[in-house]
Amino acid sequence: MINPFTDEYFMKKALQEAEMAFDKGEIPVGAIIVVNNTVIARSHNLTELLNDVTAHAEMQAITAAANYLGGKYLKDCTLYVTLEPCQMCAGALYWSQISKIVFGASDEHRGYMKMGTQLHPKTVVKRGVLAEEASDLMKQFFAKKRK
Amino acid sequence: MINPFTDEYFMKKALQEAEMAFDKGEIPVGAIIVVNNTVIARSHNLTELLNDVTAHAEMQAITAAANYLGGKYLKDCTLYVTLEPCQMCAGALYWSQISKIVFGASDEHRGYMKMGTQLHPKTVVKRGVLAEEASDLMKQFFAKKRK
Repeated sequence: MINPFTDEYFMKKALQEAEMAFDKGEIPVGAIIVVNNTVIARSHNLTELLNDVTAHAEMQAITAAANYLGGKYLKDCTLYVTLEPCQMCAGALYWSQISKIVFGASDEHRGYMKMGTQLHPKTVVKRGVLAEEASDLMKQFFAKKRK
Repeated sequence: MINPFTDEYFMKKALQEAEMAFDKGEIPVGAIIVVNNTVIARSHNLTELLNDVTAHAEMQAITAAANYLGGKYLKDCTLYVTLEPCQMCAGALYWSQISKIVFGASDEHRGYMKMGTQLHPKTVVKRGVLAEEASDLMKQFFAKKRK
């Protein structure tokens, strides 16, 4: 039987969120949280609209997922995010004890890997899913900004 | 002329916030943000009440201060927090470009220093202000929990 619920399938939904951020003039990063193949949270970066450096897509998704689940730990959840999380988001994910993180494009400058942020020992990471699409969207955004 | 606005003066206010957290059964951490000797944000840890790992005192204070200032950068602000910030909060403070962080007790296990989280290069840090008071409150909390 074909399983339609691949990482690419869910990452496309995160990319749709990133596109919504793009349309609002926000740095285009989108995230969703999935449990048992069901999306329980979706969000995109809103730091400009909310005037708030903490309003990254992942932070909002963590809060929304915990709210949906009625508990603060995201133990059976997977986060799909279009860009590698930063120190803040990785730190929040550490506290959440999330099971899996799938991200698209790497952030060579401010990503948690370069910065050395620690995730929870139980968290599995997969990187590079639809990375080119996520990266293209970021490049378009900054090219447009420079004009 | 005596300056009443010392770091101890403001840390006492952060400690009052930590006591409020204690009374609610929350891990007792309090924070305030000050600009020109005026408190513009005050908060305490609410992770239990809100079922949200992101609801640390510092995160709420950053959001509240940005809201007060009408801009997301906290360039002329000082954060007073009773406990050393974690990776998440240090990561948020990095983005905020806050001028100064004053913290009380060190967190040897999950503090940003041990974890190697990077702050903004312009951020000045002062540690150990009313550390004993902050630490005592934490010890009381965990002793009570174990009972």
